[in-house]
Amino acid sequence: MYKIVLMRHGESTWNLENRFTGWTDVDLTEKGINEAREAGRILREAGFSFDLAYTSVLKRAIRTLWLTLDEMDLMWLPVENDWRLNERHYGALQGLNKAETAAKYGDEQVLVWRRSYDTPPNPLEPNDSRTSYNDPRYAGLSKEQIPLTECLKDTVARVMPAWDDSIAPAIRAGKNIIISAHGNSLRALIKSLDGISDQDIVGLNIPNGQPLVYELDADLKPIKSYYLGDQAAIEAAMKAVASQGKSR
Amino acid sequence: MYKIVLMRHGESTWNLENRFTGWTDVDLTEKGINEAREAGRILREAGFSFDLAYTSVLKRAIRTLWLTLDEMDLMWLPVENDWRLNERHYGALQGLNKAETAAKYGDEQVLVWRRSYDTPPNPLEPNDSRTSYNDPRYAGLSKEQIPLTECLKDTVARVMPAWDDSIAPAIRAGKNIIISAHGNSLRALIKSLDGISDQDIVGLNIPNGQPLVYELDADLKPIKSYYLGDQAAIEAAMKAVASQGKSR
Repeated sequence: MYKIVLMRHGESTWNLENRFTGWTDVDLTEKGINEAREAGRILREAGFSFDLAYTSVLKRAIRTLWLTLDEMDLMWLPVENDWRLNERHYGALQGLNKAETAAKYGDEQVLVWRRSYDTPPNPLEPNDSRTSYNDPRYAGLSKEQIPLTECLKDTVARVMPAWDDSIAPAIRAGKNIIISAHGNSLRALIKSLDGISDQDIVGLNIPNGQPLVYELDADLKPIKSYYLGDQAAIEAAMKAVASQGKSR
Repeated sequence: MYKIVLMRHGESTWNLENRFTGWTDVDLTEKGINEAREAGRILREAGFSFDLAYTSVLKRAIRTLWLTLDEMDLMWLPVENDWRLNERHYGALQGLNKAETAAKYGDEQVLVWRRSYDTPPNPLEPNDSRTSYNDPRYAGLSKEQIPLTECLKDTVARVMPAWDDSIAPAIRAGKNIIISAHGNSLRALIKSLDGISDQDIVGLNIPNGQPLVYELDADLKPIKSYYLGDQAAIEAAMKAVASQGKSR
């Protein structure tokens, strides 16, 4: 049996401002920094240790990982930065306020954009300054690999190859791993691991900065999963995520 | 032509307390944190960017790297943590105050321990709690690979394979690299790169937290090397390193 830890980054500046973030490289807030440190303390006190860490190429997930590892006295841990663990690309919505967008287009339309499995928001124009084409962290990718928008289905299609090619083999090799990533890249992974339907995934909300343990069998199928830490706080955080796209 | 950056970590708590550190995993002081951030600003303003970073498995070098990368907006950079870039192991001196040791054994003896090329300090006893045998970051090493003491010659013998097997091939492949390491692991590397004699290496002192640029030819032989930043501050820092082992 294997045990892995998934963690969504701590609160980011755009979580706080309630804006669609996607691939925008915003940093953690002070609260997010504290959440990440607290996650490290919780993991350490629960007796967890790791051999290898995975994260995206976005600083809110990387800093969350760094702070967690620092608290666990594991700064020396090998870290794989994989762009395929990035947040879902939010297309032309990136930068817009969620509540304002809901007031303008209606709660229902925003829920579709946020949670529909296969309807992406409008794409960025290729000449939009918000595209990632000139960002050196994606220099190794073809233009076709760099999204201009994504629905969750698209995110699943890039996250799962990272699992299959890189993460799952490490788990099978006996490595204890932690993945510090994003709300939607983790939803993509969990959808696949738990076999959640396209409909039911809409209802899955992942709180910021809470270590989520998955116990896996020899075939890497989940046996059980649970959040570490204060369960009431986790419930409240999940509800807060669910209500972000409402106009008020 | 290639250009690489070497950097000794910022001031550590044991630099400040003037204690022999070696493989002891002490953290940066506030001054060291500021030095690391300033190094990042200097590198960014001088137009440097990197594709890959190397560091040791000791947190003073890792944190220096993290802070530098943070200032350069390069937190996503792949990082290789290589134990072979660790500081020279200081044997039974680890933890002792340099000035007190000099008062006890004489300045000359301490200079031999600090700077002799091939005379190591007394080794740690294998059952000393200061050994690294049970530290998980060295779990992949054989007992013979984990030192109980080292002279600089020993450090050269483990640093240069890291250069030959890992760092030099990356440079030849066109990667822009930064190495965040330690006073003696960098002295070992520089001794080899610059062909410095066993005698002359005694006089080489590397200041904390100052980016040191090496321009290399196609055979990775140095063309020139220079510190970035405030030259007077660098001179003063080098003199301070040289005088650490004096009784007063």
